[in-house]
Amino acid sequence: MRRMEAAVNAESLEGKVSVVRLLDAWYPICESGELEERPLTRKLYGRPLVVFRNEAGSAGALLDRCPHRNVPLSLGQVVGPNLQCGYHGWQFDREGVCRKIPGLCGPAELQSRNVESHPVREQDGYVWVWANHESEPTGAPFPLPKLDAPGYTTVRRMVEAKGTLHATIENALDVPHTSFAHKGLFRGAGRRNRIKAVVTRGEDRVQAEYVGEPRPEGVVGRVLSPSGGVVTHYDRFILPSVAQVEYSIGAENHILVTAIGTPVDDFVTRLYAVVTFRTRFPSAVVKRVLDPIAMRIFAQDAAILETQTDAIVAFGGESFVSTEIDLMGPQILRLMRRAEQKKPAKDGDESWRLEVELEV
Amino acid sequence: MRRMEAAVNAESLEGKVSVVRLLDAWYPICESGELEERPLTRKLYGRPLVVFRNEAGSAGALLDRCPHRNVPLSLGQVVGPNLQCGYHGWQFDREGVCRKIPGLCGPAELQSRNVESHPVREQDGYVWVWANHESEPTGAPFPLPKLDAPGYTTVRRMVEAKGTLHATIENALDVPHTSFAHKGLFRGAGRRNRIKAVVTRGEDRVQAEYVGEPRPEGVVGRVLSPSGGVVTHYDRFILPSVAQVEYSIGAENHILVTAIGTPVDDFVTRLYAVVTFRTRFPSAVVKRVLDPIAMRIFAQDAAILETQTDAIVAFGGESFVSTEIDLMGPQILRLMRRAEQKKPAKDGDESWRLEVELEV
Amino acid sequence: MRRMEAAVNAESLEGKVSVVRLLDAWYPICESGELEERPLTRKLYGRPLVVFRNEAGSAGALLDRCPHRNVPLSLGQVVGPNLQCGYHGWQFDREGVCRKIPGLCGPAELQSRNVESHPVREQDGYVWVWANHESEPTGAPFPLPKLDAPGYTTVRRMVEAKGTLHATIENALDVPHTSFAHKGLFRGAGRRNRIKAVVTRGEDRVQAEYVGEPRPEGVVGRVLSPSGGVVTHYDRFILPSVAQVEYSIGAENHILVTAIGTPVDDFVTRLYAVVTFRTRFPSAVVKRVLDPIAMRIFAQDAAILETQTDAIVAFGGESFVSTEIDLMGPQILRLMRRAEQKKPAKDGDESWRLEVELEV
Repeated sequence: MRRMEAAVNAESLEGKVSVVRLLDAWYPICESGELEERPLTRKLYGRPLVVFRNEAGSAGALLDRCPHRNVPLSLGQVVGPNLQCGYHGWQFDREGVCRKIPGLCGPAELQSRNVESHPVREQDGYVWVWANHESEPTGAPFPLPKLDAPGYTTVRRMVEAKGTLHATIENALDVPHTSFAHKGLFRGAGRRNRIKAVVTRGEDRVQAEYVGEPRPEGVVGRVLSPSGGVVTHYDRFILPSVAQVEYSIGAENHILVTAIGTPVDDFVTRLYAVVTFRTRFPSAVVKRVLDPIAMRIFAQDAAILETQTDAIVAFGGESFVSTEIDLMGPQILRLMRRAEQKKPAKDGDESWRLEVELEV
Repeated sequence: MRRMEAAVNAESLEGKVSVVRLLDAWYPICESGELEERPLTRKLYGRPLVVFRNEAGSAGALLDRCPHRNVPLSLGQVVGPNLQCGYHGWQFDREGVCRKIPGLCGPAELQSRNVESHPVREQDGYVWVWANHESEPTGAPFPLPKLDAPGYTTVRRMVEAKGTLHATIENALDVPHTSFAHKGLFRGAGRRNRIKAVVTRGEDRVQAEYVGEPRPEGVVGRVLSPSGGVVTHYDRFILPSVAQVEYSIGAENHILVTAIGTPVDDFVTRLYAVVTFRTRFPSAVVKRVLDPIAMRIFAQDAAILETQTDAIVAFGGESFVSTEIDLMGPQILRLMRRAEQKKPAKDGDESWRLEVELEV
Repeated sequence: MRRMEAAVNAESLEGKVSVVRLLDAWYPICESGELEERPLTRKLYGRPLVVFRNEAGSAGALLDRCPHRNVPLSLGQVVGPNLQCGYHGWQFDREGVCRKIPGLCGPAELQSRNVESHPVREQDGYVWVWANHESEPTGAPFPLPKLDAPGYTTVRRMVEAKGTLHATIENALDVPHTSFAHKGLFRGAGRRNRIKAVVTRGEDRVQAEYVGEPRPEGVVGRVLSPSGGVVTHYDRFILPSVAQVEYSIGAENHILVTAIGTPVDDFVTRLYAVVTFRTRFPSAVVKRVLDPIAMRIFAQDAAILETQTDAIVAFGGESFVSTEIDLMGPQILRLMRRAEQKKPAKDGDESWRLEVELEV
């Protein structure tokens, strides 16, 4: 217990867990439709934020602590363009400037009375927050693909896992575990096939292409393509936190899952997922069949990630051993670490290419 | 999470939270009527105490740990003049002296077998404990006013808040928040009035007098004085932990709320409140109407204090910004800090005087 | 709270609590009958272990963390001779050697992929684990006595207490507390008798013999021997963690309670107890009457141990004071400490002998 308890002190995990913090980046903080009159509480890399929409309809994200007496601003309410604290009624605009102090006879505005604010954008149905309140945003949030393409249907889901950003995204893009953790749902129902994977790198991404993969054996494969067909399958990670899985089966069936990871804190990650697909079948039918399966697969993954994270915390840090068929995990971590250290892609990195044989 | 978890380690809050410890002082630990045959567990500045009344009727307060095998004495029972541990039956008197060890053939008394004891007084319906077990009490507990005055009615209440002693007492004496947190109950129902506050200091106290204040707009004002009248209103803090609010409305209505703060630990405070009043109305009616309102006001304050404290702990310390209308808070903290450091009142302090305009 | 919270950090208790760690020793980890198809999670000195029985019927004990992605192996299942992780299907044998990695085209065996394993024995109805995964076992587990003796009946029970190994075993062998904590059940129902105890030491043990003890007054004594008779009573501690109580009352009644302590972690101890007895009465009747009483006595002890442990943690360490009638506790701790430090028994230790008068 001395040993174990000590490990629970998160400070002692520093350097022993593959926690990476990419602060200069946009992350979805909620769906646009979720943000109505009531302010929302959110965390980003452990920082408590209040996200609100003022009466003009513009979203803001402030540190969730009133500078006056440190009560969370999320307990207050929106008044005109401002968010009002529930304790003494101080009001702050979207930039965090203190605009009103009830009872005070002079003006409210004073630098020391402001609250830290984060840049906010609304795009593709999400409210995005720039994680670094001290820097200006560079570029726009990741553009979600195919949202409006003809013939495509889009489904949005948010799921939360107790796992580091890195472990959660590795899980989302990991092929080998699907035969075990999701046996019968996705893979692993029949016998295994030896296929080839080709891993390539871009400056902000890594991609695995699976060559010679048969149609998935499980329920998912049978629904997507009852008659079989040639399978094209890509798994991609794109900085800072995009996990993308693309399947084409035959000419008619195309499914693209794009999940953006939002680091709630170092050990909790939300995935804001957009699934766009086109199939032979009516999209309503596909949606009705696949949605519960997808949610069940995720529930299994979330359960595994939680036990993994609990073990990492209990043991005082990670102790991972990878093999050559862990195609994506080490690559993702390498990209994240380089981005955290603001290192450029290495010379010749673009031409890097790895071929691996594996059985799925 | 690394950042946040670290902050939960209270050691790291040292110096970042306005925790003040006034050990050489009396605090109410329970009402006299609460202390019957069963010993009570209490904490004072985080020290676990057992408070008991022996068969002769005298109250004692001991460290709640048997010196023999460290089982809490509060699980035992009173036997004659002593408190008996429930594990092996060791007995201790009110001074903590070990008087009996069952099974032992020799005498029980031996210095190393004693348990630390605190001075105890019973006064004005409370059992008071001197917080420093290593010093002799100087002076008596704060005398509660008007308990026996003709025409006055007295009501006692105990409420507990998750807040530092300082934050809880500031809250009890804070005027500006009443318009927001207690909207309609106390203030803030109608339009605001500009009034003047005069703040003066004594050696062990600070007082705010409100000049030109109209009768409170809310329910409380209407009950206390349906016909209006001149309002006299004082808020006082008296060392170590007395918060006092005094209202006179017209000639007939006088209400005096005296709350003594007891520091359960650095972040939990009990207020032992005595309300004495005289009104035009029958006191039973006033009591029945005002009691639920007062308890509701306190419940709102307790909820706010808890969110404030949780935020302070989560953020790793306080970060307060005050304005000129925070009349009492900074003064209370200054008095407490000087008392903790055993500094005398400054020369000329008695003549210090501050006038502030504010809107209530 | 600063003081108290700090104390909860178990690191700070190092050296202030009589925690002793005897790693080179066998401890029962479960009953043999408990270990079926499903792996069990257990802790030993805070180390999370998975205990499993493979298809050939052999038991294994591995560190409960897959070396690949650190998911607990206890969430997996037995496959042939191996335990299979539930995340990616890696398989490990009883020695912790990685035997299979699904999807990998090459061999699985590689030193870095192994998981730490503990020696395991099955004996006398228990699965025993050697607590030190880095040393070879010396000797066999403690042989449980009288299991097969004619005329004897055996009952097994497992109880868990929140207490250090030392405090839990002291409690099991402590006579003075029985008059208080178990008043009427065991002792303390009538008036006290002065008796003599003789304490003697062996190299790996300490024994107290009670001379002149009357038949126990409580329910237990009346059931064991309604007609009275000469009482012989020994309490023994045998390294590493055996607590043994032996009673003979008259010629016909003999009861031997052997409890082996298993350190779950520094503050939680399991007692695997074997009760063997022979009485005048039919054993089924004795069992039915005494079992609930024994379990009630233990529940009282477990409650006391928990409050003791909570107090020790809250106060930041132990602060024990012993008297001469604490016959066993200091002796047990001394033996444990010497064993932990691998010190031999002192010269002349065998002839050490202590006589103490006490009232029971």
